[in-house]
Amino acid sequence: MKIPLLNPWYVSGLVEGEGCFHVSFSLRKKLKVGIETRPSFSISLNCRDLVLLQGVHQYFDCGAIRRSESDRTYKYESRSIADLVLKIIPHFTKYALHGSKQNDFVRFADICHSVNVARHLNGDCLRGIIDSAFEMNPSGKRVRDKRDLLRVLDELKV
Amino acid sequence: MKIPLLNPWYVSGLVEGEGCFHVSFSLRKKLKVGIETRPSFSISLNCRDLVLLQGVHQYFDCGAIRRSESDRTYKYESRSIADLVLKIIPHFTKYALHGSKQNDFVRFADICHSVNVARHLNGDCLRGIIDSAFEMNPSGKRVRDKRDLLRVLDELKV
Repeated sequence: MKIPLLNPWYVSGLVEGEGCFHVSFSLRKKLKVGIETRPSFSISLNCRDLVLLQGVHQYFDCGAIRRSESDRTYKYESRSIADLVLKIIPHFTKYALHGSKQNDFVRFADICHSVNVARHLNGDCLRGIIDSAFEMNPSGKRVRDKRDLLRVLDELKV
Repeated sequence: MKIPLLNPWYVSGLVEGEGCFHVSFSLRKKLKVGIETRPSFSISLNCRDLVLLQGVHQYFDCGAIRRSESDRTYKYESRSIADLVLKIIPHFTKYALHGSKQNDFVRFADICHSVNVARHLNGDCLRGIIDSAFEMNPSGKRVRDKRDLLRVLDELKV
């Protein structure tokens, strides 16, 4: 099947329903702040829509598609901070979401811009980033509790 | 909050993820063929996206929104055959879906056009409609089994 050429507004409509702006955190002892900040943008679709997802990949011209064996879906994901700042965020600034996901996007864009200028390596800024990230995706689940992350920062006194 | 003015392509992208083209069947003894054919187009969104759904309602200029108390969603639905033929189908003909839902749409449009010219009141045509409808929404569940419906037609000998 031919990979479809997608209209920018179609991409935004699809993301309104199926996309996810997410910021995860991992404990990293080697970092001064002890926590790695990882923003990602993704779209998961049923495996029968792989060609559509390839159209999304082609549209954004960054990121990668991988298969999730567990639930028969494919996930397009973009994690590189340069790609997020230069390709993903400008798209959603120009072709804005209209639903509640716009709130997630605004927080996400703000966090990505902070990460891009290394503000996430400063303890106080990272506290703000963690606060904001935990306001996103209200129905999503997280591996790590917000209090655990803030405790790490307090113990390191950064 | 202000009801958003939606771009047609954005509507198609949203429907690719969240929309549903469906044809249900009900037993109706008063009908000669014994079965009522009911096509419907719907979009269900989380209750925090009611304003977006109102934008969809405004865009299509037909149908209605109702709340589902069971799962905290709102559903926009259009069931009138005139609205489906004159407003819903022309939209998706012009601003086509790109994923697997396009297959559902093609079958749906064909069934709506048949219903619009009353071909669903002829037994043989109705058999074809039932066959096609059961190929749609592969992951959806149905109240009534296809064999039950075909048995009704066989018993009525229409």
